[in-house]
Amino acid sequence: MFSKILYPTDFSEPSKKAIRYIKKLREAGTKEIVLLHVIDEHELVMMIEGCGWLGKNPDECLEEIEKKHREVAEKELNKIKKELMSEEVKVKTRIEKGTPFKKIVEIAEREKVSLIVMGSHGKGVLKELLIGSVSENVVRHTKKPVLIVK
Amino acid sequence: MFSKILYPTDFSEPSKKAIRYIKKLREAGTKEIVLLHVIDEHELVMMIEGCGWLGKNPDECLEEIEKKHREVAEKELNKIKKELMSEEVKVKTRIEKGTPFKKIVEIAEREKVSLIVMGSHGKGVLKELLIGSVSENVVRHTKKPVLIVK
Repeated sequence: MFSKILYPTDFSEPSKKAIRYIKKLREAGTKEIVLLHVIDEHELVMMIEGCGWLGKNPDECLEEIEKKHREVAEKELNKIKKELMSEEVKVKTRIEKGTPFKKIVEIAEREKVSLIVMGSHGKGVLKELLIGSVSENVVRHTKKPVLIVK
Repeated sequence: MFSKILYPTDFSEPSKKAIRYIKKLREAGTKEIVLLHVIDEHELVMMIEGCGWLGKNPDECLEEIEKKHREVAEKELNKIKKELMSEEVKVKTRIEKGTPFKKIVEIAEREKVSLIVMGSHGKGVLKELLIGSVSENVVRHTKKPVLIVK
């Protein structure tokens, strides 16, 4: 029932709070954990403007930003992987690009997880007031059980 | 971390799905479970009209309805209590009257629970479209972690 967990993270402090819950759930039989970071497509697009201001070629600049974002994300995911791995539990990492809540819902299906564990608020409090938090949208759109850590 | 669980239920099928998750969480150290049913104040008020149509005194009629509601709720809660109780786990039942999500948030605080486990949709799909589901409102207003079972 808690055998395969999806843990989507934007590496924010609220998101990190979920980690200790995942550790505890191992006692209820977790066998596999999928760590997911989604690169927010819309945020990337917004950065194009910044590239323009710096007088850079937007496409190249965007590519560069995405590459750096991926590098940092990979490093962070591997840190969490080390923290969660044990003899009984397999940990896998994924980096995806898209709309965070949609990607989370999609990967949860594709990975056939039994539970999603996530923080309730990530980066971007203003944005959340406008469009709802990522966790709210995940809960609304997934068929999987979701543990939301405040 | 999962030592004291609050399980609010309206006895709907989606709500009952949460029970097997609670059973599983006992393996991660649950020691106490609080079963809560909230009598929806607004629903009661709406029933006054029905009482009028039946030519009954609204106050007495409402009292009668609430009494019956409490009796049924008590019976249902005790059934669930029997199902969840074990040598290691204490189970307590509560019936409250008010706005369901507000009462759930309040009781979670008062009982100092470590987790709320609930179904994602209860009775009243139309109402949910208008004001959001009880679980959405609980997640939005509580500081406690919430496991939402779909």
